[in-house]
Amino acid sequence: MEEHALGFGSVDLRGEALRNMVRDVRDYPSAGVLYKDITPLLGNAQAFSNAIECLAAPFRDDQIEKVIGIEARGFIAAAPVALALGAGFIPVRKPGKLPWQLEAQNYELEYGVNSLEIHADAIQPGERVLIIDDVLATGGTAEAAITLAERIGGKVIGVSVLIELEFLRGRERLAGRTVSSVLTY
Amino acid sequence: MEEHALGFGSVDLRGEALRNMVRDVRDYPSAGVLYKDITPLLGNAQAFSNAIECLAAPFRDDQIEKVIGIEARGFIAAAPVALALGAGFIPVRKPGKLPWQLEAQNYELEYGVNSLEIHADAIQPGERVLIIDDVLATGGTAEAAITLAERIGGKVIGVSVLIELEFLRGRERLAGRTVSSVLTY
Repeated sequence: MEEHALGFGSVDLRGEALRNMVRDVRDYPSAGVLYKDITPLLGNAQAFSNAIECLAAPFRDDQIEKVIGIEARGFIAAAPVALALGAGFIPVRKPGKLPWQLEAQNYELEYGVNSLEIHADAIQPGERVLIIDDVLATGGTAEAAITLAERIGGKVIGVSVLIELEFLRGRERLAGRTVSSVLTY
Repeated sequence: MEEHALGFGSVDLRGEALRNMVRDVRDYPSAGVLYKDITPLLGNAQAFSNAIECLAAPFRDDQIEKVIGIEARGFIAAAPVALALGAGFIPVRKPGKLPWQLEAQNYELEYGVNSLEIHADAIQPGERVLIIDDVLATGGTAEAAITLAERIGGKVIGVSVLIELEFLRGRERLAGRTVSSVLTY
């Protein structure tokens, strides 16, 4: 599923070019963690454009009507994908950031619980929804976003992420869902 | 400066159409505040696309190389503008969110101080930078973003925002800068 065939040139070269722009940062945010820093990729106009195309392409024919971005880095990828697919953009945010009537969903962290929120009127019943995030790790945030989208009436078509950390098995947690990733580690 | 002429149809009608999609929320985030909620605008594919065009258009001929988005709602507008202008995207974030060597800048709040951060290597010396945010209020965050961009060598060409709250006089604080807003209140 990684490095989608897009029909313009060598797919592996494109995947490798993007991969080379992800910076490894040791011991961030805590000791022992190897953090994947996507800011060099975002800062390169061509790489950023290519990455958005890779995120959107697998869902080009799915009549996506709403694209959900998960705060905060997910916004950076999701907003351009919404425009690329001719869809509206819906933010899923951390608690206390949305001003209108909302739905909330908890998800587990390694130690503790966090929560995500969506405006209750963000999606019309039956609208076709794509969920975008920068990284798929354990799948907890993506699962919470799916739950929120469906609770307010959306039909979740898939989840598309820039980076999939395969060893954290997020894809298993999202079993039965269409999950697409641009780069896998 | 509001409601830029874009050369396709009635400018006022376009501005009014966007304005009608900004929702007033009373007493958020605190009593007495009338909050401008842009989520209905973002959720409408055509309005979102029009808003991005209005943000980018005044800087179309300025050879912008990097577009800065200010966390978090600024990311939603800035990332598509970067793609529209063929520029890279640079996040300016709240403290503790960026993993690499960084520069920080304080700015004043009504009560207290907050801080914004940028990666020290995000901009090459002399690169032409556009700063994007959703709302221009007192101008404190935009001023901090300008300071950060210039400290790491960028040439700030302008600031473009979706909403300008004129009564907070942010434009005066940014005197001497090119400031563009899509909607004013």
